[in-house]
Amino acid sequence: METSIPKTMRSLICYGPEDYRLEEIPVPEIGPGEVLVRVLGAGICAGDVKCFAGAPLFWGDDVRAAYCQPPVTPGHEFVGEVVALGEGAAEKYGLAVGDRAISEQIVPCWECRFCKRGQYWMCDGKHDVYGFRQRTPGAMAEYMRFPADAINHKVPADLSVRQAVYIEPLACAIHAVQRANIELGDTVVVAGSGPLGLGMVAAARLKNPGCLVALDLHPNRLEVAKHAGADLVFNPNEVDVIAEVKRLTGGYGCDVYIEATGHVEGVPQGLHMIRRLGTFVEFSVFNEPVRVDWTIIGDTKELNILGAHLGPYCYPLAMEMLRKGQVPAEEIVTHCFPLEQHEQAFAMVLEAKESIKVMFEP
Amino acid sequence: METSIPKTMRSLICYGPEDYRLEEIPVPEIGPGEVLVRVLGAGICAGDVKCFAGAPLFWGDDVRAAYCQPPVTPGHEFVGEVVALGEGAAEKYGLAVGDRAISEQIVPCWECRFCKRGQYWMCDGKHDVYGFRQRTPGAMAEYMRFPADAINHKVPADLSVRQAVYIEPLACAIHAVQRANIELGDTVVVAGSGPLGLGMVAAARLKNPGCLVALDLHPNRLEVAKHAGADLVFNPNEVDVIAEVKRLTGGYGCDVYIEATGHVEGVPQGLHMIRRLGTFVEFSVFNEPVRVDWTIIGDTKELNILGAHLGPYCYPLAMEMLRKGQVPAEEIVTHCFPLEQHEQAFAMVLEAKESIKVMFEP
Amino acid sequence: METSIPKTMRSLICYGPEDYRLEEIPVPEIGPGEVLVRVLGAGICAGDVKCFAGAPLFWGDDVRAAYCQPPVTPGHEFVGEVVALGEGAAEKYGLAVGDRAISEQIVPCWECRFCKRGQYWMCDGKHDVYGFRQRTPGAMAEYMRFPADAINHKVPADLSVRQAVYIEPLACAIHAVQRANIELGDTVVVAGSGPLGLGMVAAARLKNPGCLVALDLHPNRLEVAKHAGADLVFNPNEVDVIAEVKRLTGGYGCDVYIEATGHVEGVPQGLHMIRRLGTFVEFSVFNEPVRVDWTIIGDTKELNILGAHLGPYCYPLAMEMLRKGQVPAEEIVTHCFPLEQHEQAFAMVLEAKESIKVMFEP
Amino acid sequence: METSIPKTMRSLICYGPEDYRLEEIPVPEIGPGEVLVRVLGAGICAGDVKCFAGAPLFWGDDVRAAYCQPPVTPGHEFVGEVVALGEGAAEKYGLAVGDRAISEQIVPCWECRFCKRGQYWMCDGKHDVYGFRQRTPGAMAEYMRFPADAINHKVPADLSVRQAVYIEPLACAIHAVQRANIELGDTVVVAGSGPLGLGMVAAARLKNPGCLVALDLHPNRLEVAKHAGADLVFNPNEVDVIAEVKRLTGGYGCDVYIEATGHVEGVPQGLHMIRRLGTFVEFSVFNEPVRVDWTIIGDTKELNILGAHLGPYCYPLAMEMLRKGQVPAEEIVTHCFPLEQHEQAFAMVLEAKESIKVMFEP
Repeated sequence: METSIPKTMRSLICYGPEDYRLEEIPVPEIGPGEVLVRVLGAGICAGDVKCFAGAPLFWGDDVRAAYCQPPVTPGHEFVGEVVALGEGAAEKYGLAVGDRAISEQIVPCWECRFCKRGQYWMCDGKHDVYGFRQRTPGAMAEYMRFPADAINHKVPADLSVRQAVYIEPLACAIHAVQRANIELGDTVVVAGSGPLGLGMVAAARLKNPGCLVALDLHPNRLEVAKHAGADLVFNPNEVDVIAEVKRLTGGYGCDVYIEATGHVEGVPQGLHMIRRLGTFVEFSVFNEPVRVDWTIIGDTKELNILGAHLGPYCYPLAMEMLRKGQVPAEEIVTHCFPLEQHEQAFAMVLEAKESIKVMFEP
Repeated sequence: METSIPKTMRSLICYGPEDYRLEEIPVPEIGPGEVLVRVLGAGICAGDVKCFAGAPLFWGDDVRAAYCQPPVTPGHEFVGEVVALGEGAAEKYGLAVGDRAISEQIVPCWECRFCKRGQYWMCDGKHDVYGFRQRTPGAMAEYMRFPADAINHKVPADLSVRQAVYIEPLACAIHAVQRANIELGDTVVVAGSGPLGLGMVAAARLKNPGCLVALDLHPNRLEVAKHAGADLVFNPNEVDVIAEVKRLTGGYGCDVYIEATGHVEGVPQGLHMIRRLGTFVEFSVFNEPVRVDWTIIGDTKELNILGAHLGPYCYPLAMEMLRKGQVPAEEIVTHCFPLEQHEQAFAMVLEAKESIKVMFEP
Repeated sequence: METSIPKTMRSLICYGPEDYRLEEIPVPEIGPGEVLVRVLGAGICAGDVKCFAGAPLFWGDDVRAAYCQPPVTPGHEFVGEVVALGEGAAEKYGLAVGDRAISEQIVPCWECRFCKRGQYWMCDGKHDVYGFRQRTPGAMAEYMRFPADAINHKVPADLSVRQAVYIEPLACAIHAVQRANIELGDTVVVAGSGPLGLGMVAAARLKNPGCLVALDLHPNRLEVAKHAGADLVFNPNEVDVIAEVKRLTGGYGCDVYIEATGHVEGVPQGLHMIRRLGTFVEFSVFNEPVRVDWTIIGDTKELNILGAHLGPYCYPLAMEMLRKGQVPAEEIVTHCFPLEQHEQAFAMVLEAKESIKVMFEP
Repeated sequence: METSIPKTMRSLICYGPEDYRLEEIPVPEIGPGEVLVRVLGAGICAGDVKCFAGAPLFWGDDVRAAYCQPPVTPGHEFVGEVVALGEGAAEKYGLAVGDRAISEQIVPCWECRFCKRGQYWMCDGKHDVYGFRQRTPGAMAEYMRFPADAINHKVPADLSVRQAVYIEPLACAIHAVQRANIELGDTVVVAGSGPLGLGMVAAARLKNPGCLVALDLHPNRLEVAKHAGADLVFNPNEVDVIAEVKRLTGGYGCDVYIEATGHVEGVPQGLHMIRRLGTFVEFSVFNEPVRVDWTIIGDTKELNILGAHLGPYCYPLAMEMLRKGQVPAEEIVTHCFPLEQHEQAFAMVLEAKESIKVMFEP
């Protein structure tokens, strides 16, 4: 049984940098193995705002091709209610009409060397993330299709829409924390307490480090970082955080530094704050090159600098964390807009002042 | 029995940047656990030349204290003949007067958290490397003392002095290769075929990667790289090496990139040449900051950037490689000077044209 | 274009323990994504002989269900010539009629938690290995079908049939060696120089350990072990191998022990021969339980005992080793029989005297 | 200033299996770097009871030399009050007279290959553990000497004596859990809820697995296991624990199994309960060989069987866990005796009925 599905729907459409329009377009049709959901909520990622602003990562430069393929519906953080299931999809995903469902942000090609080895999040074939590519229109619309190659999960009914919209960022945060190899007793610094950094604080808390420190320039975010599990919070505008972390660690520096600031200053700050043989996780997407002395990485400290991207195998863990109340998602998802107010919503994310995570309720 | 030891000796003395003088100074006296050697050969490291030229790593800047403590005898690559042994040193190191001996370049403090965990090369206490510090005068002199805290090895009698002088750089090269986690079938690129890079090529050869590529701007070095075991050699001045390596790997990029160029361009070259989830080993000491997009490390490729410093636990392996002829040391150590010609010797290393490794025979 | 394919073919059929019959059966028909090959050679595995003899691993006991599903054509080590390709198979596998091809021994379910994470060799769904299961009849017949879920590889034309038949065992040997984490300088012992052990010696040789030791009770196999790269070979019937290995290692014991004897005595031998904190790889299939003091594993030596099964991701590496002549396959595959002489062939493997690997040329 | 120290003291002395006597012996004298403590508490380890009963691990058999060197004061779990400090010991350990102090159970040789690499707990030179060896008399006496090569820690003043006596077992438990590589979401089984197993449950709890299961035959211990953090507890006498764990994990089996039963049945139970590619930590000291099918380790499941011994680098972590109340030590240390009642105390541990950890207050 399917709920009544209209022929057309409202959808935000990205036509290019700073050219996003709300339009009426056809509701997607689904084929075998595909899923159609009515979108219940769609978060705005820092990446969405960077794409809107014209960042070269999305629109290309002299060394990179454009990643974004307009016109396309944006949105890769979302939750929906299943309204139709293509042949075989119910069995494959354990989904029924009426269930809440989520699809991992990347739809892999399943054919490149990475997909064949279980490293689907590093798909080198299409690397289609919802909201940027013709094959995978996103969630800032009333309805959304999960293609047959997608990785879909049933969302527990006891999660609120706000919590469910936070599953995707939290999965990414968990993956970054997994990369950090946190040991009992470690001093861990999470730099940047935005939506991602706050999820990292919550996930790092589960590893029971000796001391968990969160950094941010906004006092409201540091307050939420405490609720997420930070033992200490510092504002680099107010405190010499490098000196403070060295003081906390007998002069050695922190064992683990997770860089989620999105600002170039987050890198040298970490390289100077971390101890020799420490682990530095790099998560941010930067608007410009980072200028820093690489001698520190090898000769001076013999560091492990480990990148992190997306949230492979972490969606079930994220849902479990949310169910157990191990992350203050309701404090992180601060604002909610209808699609009609997309300009205000994007502006609020860009400003990054009172809001943390902003979402649409289409 | 001790051979006759004079009271004074000739020694090069570093007084400051570009102020190195050959002087007559007292032969060091030794105490319990210490070893006195007559220096048979002392190599000039790229670091020695950078110290001579006044690099901030050695002489300090606004973020770093000076590492070099003048006046001091330079030289941390060397081999000597044992001429006297302090109480207990014969038993501790298995050394006898007349043996050839080497001492690892770092004399650890044995008290900091790193030294206590077997990570002595990352000593955070004194980090005294021969040739830079008051506690550890170096090898560019006729005699040299190994302090009681040093890590000394007997050098096989069948190694030539040239080979033995190459033990220290080769140990560093082996350590960098150990960090690279090379698997059978990997495509491995060693960027920079100087004395260190050539040792890395030889050590990487022992891991039997699928394809081993060496890069350098000097044709003579690339020629030696072939003898060291490179399957392919490229000159970035002549070939688009990024395109070439991508072509060799079905467009994916190399699995492992070892950065030993000493030039800032070596970093972006590697970040663009390496595949997603690849391993990038950073060994170089740089004269200036590296400006590069760190988004590649996390978001785009989820790399492992692993630093490498010194050659812990690698001196026995280096001696074994040299004994088995697995590295063309005689081609790498190209020139030999008496101490009197220290200006020519340093100039030749700085020029880096016909020479590869230059050594003194004091 | 397809070569002419007959309607029926000769095939060995396993009906139960010690009940194997040569019969005329239909040539398999193929569907989309499938491949039909004319079998050029099919090796007899120690497992095939154990299945023939009625081992509980294949026929079940009080704790295990039977793995073998008779009636079935045996044979999971093979090479064939492509004679027909189902829809899409040519593109998927890069195969053309006339090519030589191999299919990995396991045909995964692609749906269990292991298959979904790239760990297909530990498939917990069907775990169908050719030659034992109704879904995957094996190679001891004139023709053979590779199902659509199989992992197929083109075999280089410059490999002989004997070499190609050895690809499967060699892939398993490489995987076991990958599990062993061999470091430069290690003393490595491969216990058992049968077809698998000899491949392990050859693969371990590529890791350049400090000393590579092979053990076996048969002098002819030890002779081949030398050709495969062993530095030393010992016969436990003639030498106290535990004492000998301790002597070689200053009393500490070997760093790595790879157990490929198939005999229960291979386990305690290794536990006593290995050093503290050493790595012990377990590969054998045993006919009976092993009785040994597990206190050695934890309290006494804190060992890593790492199992190894099949040859995941290793077929391309095996083909490359064979192409480069890095393993003496022609000396390992000692005997070749027509299917009609299956009784003599199995008896020869069981006897394990003059033969090493025995194959059929159907 | 030293507190008044008598010339003689009461000490339990082990003369051989079942021959332990309480005697008056001289209080040890201390030299440079040494520490004298008045023993506040000394726990009885399962190993102490096995030594008392004559186990071959301590008294030798045809393959092992005797480890125990009588006559010797037993006891390696303890806490003491510092009453005298040899020259340099105050600075080296940060200790003052009046402080509570603990010494790690092993006093390393600092000269073997393991000690030189930071792997002191696997010391292959002397491997002197307190309470068994002439160099290291133990804690079941009024006073005790920490030799100059010992690793000593100051014990926080806010720990009770019962808590402090539990530091040693807890350090061992933490190390075993570190070996287990527990990931978020894992199903972890700790088999055996004795003093060690309970510490493992508490330490595993800090890793936040998805489900933490404790097993034991004694209901009182399972009750404490819940307080230590187990999500589920099962008694193998009452429940088919293999079936139960498979049911909990969708038929796959647990991700991690930590064997701390001390009984041979704990091994096959784990091998059948664990999933393919799972991690099995072996901690127990066994009285007899384990008879089990090793085919499961390699061919069937490709397991990681990782041994664990002692508690290297874990004493500070154990003290921190105790300070934070993360382990119910007061429930684990159930009974306390004067030295005079050593027979009752040992008998109570052997019986293992109402007691969990039994200690002396000398």
